[in-house]
Amino acid sequence: MNGLHLIADLHECQCPPGRLLDAPSLESFCVDACQRHGLTVVGRLFHAFQDKHGQAAGVTGTVVLAESHLAVHTWPEIASVTLDVYVCNFSGDNSHQAQALFGEVITWFSPSRLEKKEVARGHLGE
Amino acid sequence: MNGLHLIADLHECQCPPGRLLDAPSLESFCVDACQRHGLTVVGRLFHAFQDKHGQAAGVTGTVVLAESHLAVHTWPEIASVTLDVYVCNFSGDNSHQAQALFGEVITWFSPSRLEKKEVARGHLGE
Repeated sequence: MNGLHLIADLHECQCPPGRLLDAPSLESFCVDACQRHGLTVVGRLFHAFQDKHGQAAGVTGTVVLAESHLAVHTWPEIASVTLDVYVCNFSGDNSHQAQALFGEVITWFSPSRLEKKEVARGHLGE
Repeated sequence: MNGLHLIADLHECQCPPGRLLDAPSLESFCVDACQRHGLTVVGRLFHAFQDKHGQAAGVTGTVVLAESHLAVHTWPEIASVTLDVYVCNFSGDNSHQAQALFGEVITWFSPSRLEKKEVARGHLGE
């Protein structure tokens, strides 16, 4: 279960605003990106929120991977996104794939400000 | 988007082994626990893995919340679980609910050894 959990909070995203609003497009992008980086998608669930006026108000989504998960939440009203990419290394060292996927998703949103963390998971079990 | 992300790696789980193997039961428990602690479930996705002999080999699942997400991955072969509970405080301070949910899920698995982390999310945006 040892693995790498990459965490980012993205602020002042300069991408087209629709990227934080359009759940099907975000889902396609995330699933394609996971597959492109060699990870195994076993499911995906994206939900579009609406505000009290019925307007699009952000997306929350997860891609469930054989290697763990990607989670993304968008906050279009403040042009911000939170991102998690967590991969275990059960089937081999997937850290490189995780870093590449993480970088690609961040680039897609094009944040002006970014806070990143890396958390090593599961190492107590060794 | 400010929020609290609680991370735990659970080792030597003393609960009945089926809790790490039975995806529908784990899904029901997680969804019920989220709701019991006042969080709003907008979706759930649980996947049961099989080993090469067709035997149950762990579960990965996420509960997508209006307040962000819960993610759980089980590793029955080493009696371990990884858990994430991430709640934003968009609609009010949900930290107390997150801590209570996190504690309940950990107790359910009954680990002998536990590593926990708390990550504050999104504060750069304030």
